[in-house]
Amino acid sequence: MSNLTRRSLLAGSALAMTAAGAPAIAAAPPADKATPGIYRYKIGSYELTALYDGIWYRPITDKFISNAPFAEVERALDDAFMPHDRLATPFTTLIVNTGNKLVLIDTGTGGQIAPSAGVLSENLAAAGIDPKAVDQIVISHFHPDHINGIKDKDNALIFPNAEIMVPEPEWAFWMSDANMNAADTDLKLTFRNQRRIFSDIIEQVTRFEPGQEVAPGIEALAAAGHTPGHTVFAIHSDNQSLLVLGDTAQHPAVFARHPDWQASFDIDGAAAVATRKKIFDRAAADRMLVTGYHFPFPACGHLFKTATGYEHVPVEWQPNLE
Amino acid sequence: MSNLTRRSLLAGSALAMTAAGAPAIAAAPPADKATPGIYRYKIGSYELTALYDGIWYRPITDKFISNAPFAEVERALDDAFMPHDRLATPFTTLIVNTGNKLVLIDTGTGGQIAPSAGVLSENLAAAGIDPKAVDQIVISHFHPDHINGIKDKDNALIFPNAEIMVPEPEWAFWMSDANMNAADTDLKLTFRNQRRIFSDIIEQVTRFEPGQEVAPGIEALAAAGHTPGHTVFAIHSDNQSLLVLGDTAQHPAVFARHPDWQASFDIDGAAAVATRKKIFDRAAADRMLVTGYHFPFPACGHLFKTATGYEHVPVEWQPNLE
Repeated sequence: MSNLTRRSLLAGSALAMTAAGAPAIAAAPPADKATPGIYRYKIGSYELTALYDGIWYRPITDKFISNAPFAEVERALDDAFMPHDRLATPFTTLIVNTGNKLVLIDTGTGGQIAPSAGVLSENLAAAGIDPKAVDQIVISHFHPDHINGIKDKDNALIFPNAEIMVPEPEWAFWMSDANMNAADTDLKLTFRNQRRIFSDIIEQVTRFEPGQEVAPGIEALAAAGHTPGHTVFAIHSDNQSLLVLGDTAQHPAVFARHPDWQASFDIDGAAAVATRKKIFDRAAADRMLVTGYHFPFPACGHLFKTATGYEHVPVEWQPNLE
Repeated sequence: MSNLTRRSLLAGSALAMTAAGAPAIAAAPPADKATPGIYRYKIGSYELTALYDGIWYRPITDKFISNAPFAEVERALDDAFMPHDRLATPFTTLIVNTGNKLVLIDTGTGGQIAPSAGVLSENLAAAGIDPKAVDQIVISHFHPDHINGIKDKDNALIFPNAEIMVPEPEWAFWMSDANMNAADTDLKLTFRNQRRIFSDIIEQVTRFEPGQEVAPGIEALAAAGHTPGHTVFAIHSDNQSLLVLGDTAQHPAVFARHPDWQASFDIDGAAAVATRKKIFDRAAADRMLVTGYHFPFPACGHLFKTATGYEHVPVEWQPNLE
């Protein structure tokens, strides 16, 4: 029975009740749509908005982690209430309003990765943010789920007025035709996708070095491993800070709890592990606020060190902007 | 310097740049307001909306947990990134649209508990739900943060058309003048508050027994301890289920991880612990979806059993309604 038919029947019975003199409180119709994935918070005087792009259930095999028995991986997936053949991969981008720049860090999937992702534009609208008002896009690394949202499916710019800032070492690695030619078939797709995104907009692209400020109070820090130019960002304002982890760890229930695990999607698994542990040790010791691109929405929280790894503690949702 | 003044200065400098021929992309103004705390999901054909009422940072002392050394409690608070003198106490109410009834489970604070709580009405509006359309209010127990939202500060009904359904054992305990007279000064305030809420609306109140269905597919289950008539609810639709835990455990970082801890706010601490472990064991063994009134928003997830307690695993935020 369709919802409409069922609803009509209910309306009919409410009418019948009215005729009989009984109170006829009509049931409210279902909203039948999702609520926005947006969360606003402050770092000093900067106003941040976490914007959900959706989630990809990434197919995985028993070779997914190269340095742990799959039975251990299965236990971690069980504890995360995930199936064994797919890794929950949520995407949360971040808008920073510094007061004089509107900066977007990573761009989501542009609706080009999975049907369950690509809602960033809707969430921007729900947050009252005009894509035309974005002044800068800052990219952590060149995987498609971070750069595809620069353009829509038809190759039109989604943020037409934004300067696009990319890490120089990332550009050097992926834009090298020698590296592309040496890559296996799957990785070649990644190289080709980057050329699709960047080739006709090179004049809008600015390359930065790790250690530089990419915008006032937003500092780029080298975090190679996941990719050769993978970069994290420290945001500072008025003695408050946030560390933007990018893909230092993907889902924390898997990779914060098991920081030694090398995933098939890391270009250099050993370097990714070393970078992860170095950054997470620092974040845990200093009790820093962190956000991870693949952490569960709204993706912001703290890390504490356990006997075997780290536990991510999401922030409490603040009802007011403070 | 006020935001306004700062913004004016920036606008001035952008103008100056334009005069000099440089591109003048105006910074987007800050939104300067919080995003709604609403999250919609489905259980079978039922549409649920988690509605945030805000958070109370409840003052606590070193006597807060009666059966654990405070040093252990402090470690748990540290791991939850909470201070030692306040317990983060978020409030998430739940709307269930069964298709022919709009049911609200617990009502929030009505803005009468803490300045950082009382945003339920705003979130109802953001979710497109008219308080007048709520057919039933179902109450888990009679603590003020669960019943005060029945009325506003001026004693007017917030959900004027709703039948108010309350657990019979809860009514019997708190409406007893003998129990009120025997209570200490603090607890007497609780008794008086209940009389303020209920005394002039008794004709709208329906009492139910544990084991009864309070609405189609919503079953009440006895869960005494926190209060004598504390009740949880199982929601069933089309072979999917959700267990609505009420205050079986308050913040999971404290009470799921340490299920044996007896809190000063439990009327019968030992019974509260026994109930908590019985229900959590069942939920963990059956991998049931659960929601807790004081769990971090959107408060919905699963529990798994650890060597020493339980870990709450929040659901992944779904971008679409499925």
